[in-house]
Amino acid sequence: MTIEQKHHQFQQYLSRKDSKRYLPAFWEHGPFPENLNKKLNLLDPKKQILLSSGVPNKELFSIKNISVNHTLDLGHENVGIPGDHVLTNTFHIGDESFSKHMSTKDKDYNSNVPIESVFEYADQTYGLSSTIELFNKLVTKFNYFREDILDNNQRKINYETIITSGTSASCFYLTQMLLDENKTILIEEFTYPVIIANVNMTDGHYAPFNLNMHATEENGQNPIDVEYLNTLLSNWDSFYPNKPYPTCLYTIPVQNPTGLVQSSEHRQEVYDICKKFNVLIIEDDPYGNILLTDEVNKVKDNEDKSPYNAFVNQKNDYLKKLESAASYLSIDTEGIVLRCESVSKVFAPGLRVGVIIANKFFIDRLKNIIECTTREISGPSMTMFNECCYGMDVLLKRQLQVDNIDRLDGWIQWLMNLSHRYKLRQDILLSSLYNTKAYKDKKLFECIEPKFGMFLCIKLNLETLKPQVLESSLSMQKCMQYMDYKLLEHNLSAIVGTKLSIDLDHSYKKSGFIRVTVAQATGKEQLQLAAHELGKAIEEFFDEYLTPSQEYEVLL
Amino acid sequence: MTIEQKHHQFQQYLSRKDSKRYLPAFWEHGPFPENLNKKLNLLDPKKQILLSSGVPNKELFSIKNISVNHTLDLGHENVGIPGDHVLTNTFHIGDESFSKHMSTKDKDYNSNVPIESVFEYADQTYGLSSTIELFNKLVTKFNYFREDILDNNQRKINYETIITSGTSASCFYLTQMLLDENKTILIEEFTYPVIIANVNMTDGHYAPFNLNMHATEENGQNPIDVEYLNTLLSNWDSFYPNKPYPTCLYTIPVQNPTGLVQSSEHRQEVYDICKKFNVLIIEDDPYGNILLTDEVNKVKDNEDKSPYNAFVNQKNDYLKKLESAASYLSIDTEGIVLRCESVSKVFAPGLRVGVIIANKFFIDRLKNIIECTTREISGPSMTMFNECCYGMDVLLKRQLQVDNIDRLDGWIQWLMNLSHRYKLRQDILLSSLYNTKAYKDKKLFECIEPKFGMFLCIKLNLETLKPQVLESSLSMQKCMQYMDYKLLEHNLSAIVGTKLSIDLDHSYKKSGFIRVTVAQATGKEQLQLAAHELGKAIEEFFDEYLTPSQEYEVLL
Repeated sequence: MTIEQKHHQFQQYLSRKDSKRYLPAFWEHGPFPENLNKKLNLLDPKKQILLSSGVPNKELFSIKNISVNHTLDLGHENVGIPGDHVLTNTFHIGDESFSKHMSTKDKDYNSNVPIESVFEYADQTYGLSSTIELFNKLVTKFNYFREDILDNNQRKINYETIITSGTSASCFYLTQMLLDENKTILIEEFTYPVIIANVNMTDGHYAPFNLNMHATEENGQNPIDVEYLNTLLSNWDSFYPNKPYPTCLYTIPVQNPTGLVQSSEHRQEVYDICKKFNVLIIEDDPYGNILLTDEVNKVKDNEDKSPYNAFVNQKNDYLKKLESAASYLSIDTEGIVLRCESVSKVFAPGLRVGVIIANKFFIDRLKNIIECTTREISGPSMTMFNECCYGMDVLLKRQLQVDNIDRLDGWIQWLMNLSHRYKLRQDILLSSLYNTKAYKDKKLFECIEPKFGMFLCIKLNLETLKPQVLESSLSMQKCMQYMDYKLLEHNLSAIVGTKLSIDLDHSYKKSGFIRVTVAQATGKEQLQLAAHELGKAIEEFFDEYLTPSQEYEVLL
Repeated sequence: MTIEQKHHQFQQYLSRKDSKRYLPAFWEHGPFPENLNKKLNLLDPKKQILLSSGVPNKELFSIKNISVNHTLDLGHENVGIPGDHVLTNTFHIGDESFSKHMSTKDKDYNSNVPIESVFEYADQTYGLSSTIELFNKLVTKFNYFREDILDNNQRKINYETIITSGTSASCFYLTQMLLDENKTILIEEFTYPVIIANVNMTDGHYAPFNLNMHATEENGQNPIDVEYLNTLLSNWDSFYPNKPYPTCLYTIPVQNPTGLVQSSEHRQEVYDICKKFNVLIIEDDPYGNILLTDEVNKVKDNEDKSPYNAFVNQKNDYLKKLESAASYLSIDTEGIVLRCESVSKVFAPGLRVGVIIANKFFIDRLKNIIECTTREISGPSMTMFNECCYGMDVLLKRQLQVDNIDRLDGWIQWLMNLSHRYKLRQDILLSSLYNTKAYKDKKLFECIEPKFGMFLCIKLNLETLKPQVLESSLSMQKCMQYMDYKLLEHNLSAIVGTKLSIDLDHSYKKSGFIRVTVAQATGKEQLQLAAHELGKAIEEFFDEYLTPSQEYEVLL
């Protein structure tokens, strides 16, 4: 199929409103007759005098330069306590002569970024070219398209990257593009509920697809219930006689809230079904680079290696592990995958920088939506991310005491360090949880041990110990509300499963879990305390709920 | 009328979709029974362990601190050349111990802003509390509500402020809130066309209202043709039988593109009509603080005054002048004004920080839209703006060599300096334009001399010299396309009036102008060159167009 045919085929996925989103290009000139065109081509574009748009000249900006101190070093064994000697790098954005605090020897890394490129309107409403370029380099670095396979290398040229102000904005744009009253999106039965608000705004429909909560790395089962998905799409009208046939599917492959991870093989199974039924896949993956295994960061057989060789070993290990749960893009022969990423979980949520990677047809439509809606993204945010990312290389070279490394290896080291910290946090919480009376003696819960990400799912053993709450959606909702009361009573803020279901009538039997994250806790001591209190809250819940000692009436 | 009655009445202005925008508050807890509530109130909220949301702990951020050098000093007479001794202030965000370049004596102003408040999720999706607080202080400082009048002081408490990622985003949210297929918005016949894209997305309708292009400061005429507006709203069905009756009006009071300014009296006239016909007013005012008069910055009778007293004099002058063209909020007895501001033109567009001030009913609905769509705004952008704004006070104190000034006087000095620069730029362009042969000898054009803002409107004398182009919308479009060809041939990028009209059939007779801005030019020399080339381009246009010497065929 030619690109044109393909694009014609993609047209059917668009919201009927898409063609109404149109910004008259008042800033454009032309069309030009031939003889004028020739003349204009002879002019020096650098000498053009710009009287057209209200872009303040750089002399009119108060901020003359910005210096940023950042690190690659996240400390080592003691969660929450940074190492004694934190190696930092300083970079400077803007005119050096305005920085009083700088001498030549201080200059670690000069970004060469003029201040106006941060504070003027960006060169594009969908992100600074420099930031897009950086993400394209990372796509190559992480080998999203498996360029080692010839076909995929060819395929890559049909994709494009745009920057957004985070995945919330991305999901908003995507649902605006793809949904209307005649379209349905499939969503994992438990999810991050903002997507529902996005869908409702479009008048579109949604329906859940099932998770397999028993999938583990050991048993190798797919965390997506692919059998259900296949049956659902084969017999749509019998499941949902009043909803239009689905045109897209939304998945968080390192699942929020359950922490279940789709391996590359699992994604292939889901992809094959979507391909068969002409369903687009929105892959929302903010956690994919946080790898929770011990092996990568352990020095194995590395004693006789140089720091540089040890790093290369670790890097190869890390990249190989990521490849075992590779993006849907890596298998997207049909151009039906739209991938969302974010720097929120791997750099800083306050920056508001996210990314969409998809085929050019959809990216063009997204650019148009951005033009017509929110337009630009923060210049300081984008530039700080760029410069930090490149600055990580300076830090890594210093750390490894070498002059040359592969470009952006510093970013990989950062991600490995970050993964290590999350793994440490996870280990502390898990081992403390497994030490509680509630677990050890009473078997009141079990945990889904995630291999990626920052969430942990504590499944209550309701089937055996409180089977009556499984009778209806309402009884489950009440039960988990009581669980939440007990958590709050122990001064714990967590989220119970019933609040993360998109259709409780569909999913209530599986909703007996608590989602916790290790990201926010202050350190080791607090994580241990959290586990202890979680254990007690769960014990009290089982002791009290629906017994004479139930302390509180449940309000919904 | 009580607030409740008022809110009930406001309900009618909302888009029918507004109630569909709803985010399930999965992060909230409760409702609680009484006995639990009592218990929870006894707990220490600071000791609550947060396991609920994926907010990375501050130890997981790479950036440890940010130092910013900024100035209040924009140089004096030579546009484009900063003064020799630019006074700068440095502030630091985050942990000082990570900044290698700092010694105690370097510390001009310590922001006391911890790094996590920049890089974590913000405390609200509609802006950091600290930034909202700052804008509220500015509202008081600039006396938007004319608090000197008792009633208005009372009125103020019904209003609220939210932060957005700029006025483009604000206008997108506002149109989403207010428009659907059953609603019409009135828009100035010439405007910044992004609003049209916003409106189209909602299925809403729009219609132009007329500008009075002959209004000047001297003749005191209202730049809004209030007679037309009144007639239009009194006889809507005869003007637009197929469009719903208007529910809101969009105005740029320091008009883009014409540069026409609505004084306080003019706004009262427009307000009275809108009030009478139950029409909301969206006031989009990014230029209102850029005051283009000589007087403020001139030292008059100040020779014998201290620098501090001279500043106070200038400040009072400046504020008085602003009051002569005060916000619609100052007269908004009905709560029907929604005001948009932006820091783009007075600080830096790349920051992406804008503001909406409106009554609480509408602000609540806007907060909900933000929750359901784009969510948060850049932390570094908001914090840098806050700290620069407060840092201006440090600079001003140093400049005036006093220990105390009124808080945020520094920001006023900044705005006065900026106004002065724009005025200088404007003067250079205008005096050079008035010196061209095209103006002096041939009277080919006249200029609207703006008293605020950054735009300048060059009206071509088509009525006398090319009356045939006034015959139809098409002939005007072709004529101005030829004008654009001539501008481009002279390596000038400007925007011709026909491209800024929202309904050319309605406005073609007034479209014979060129919008230029002085913001973007590099300096004095370039502005003089621009005027020279503008003059030549206009001469050639009149010499050639529709004569045998016409060089190019016109393509549309």
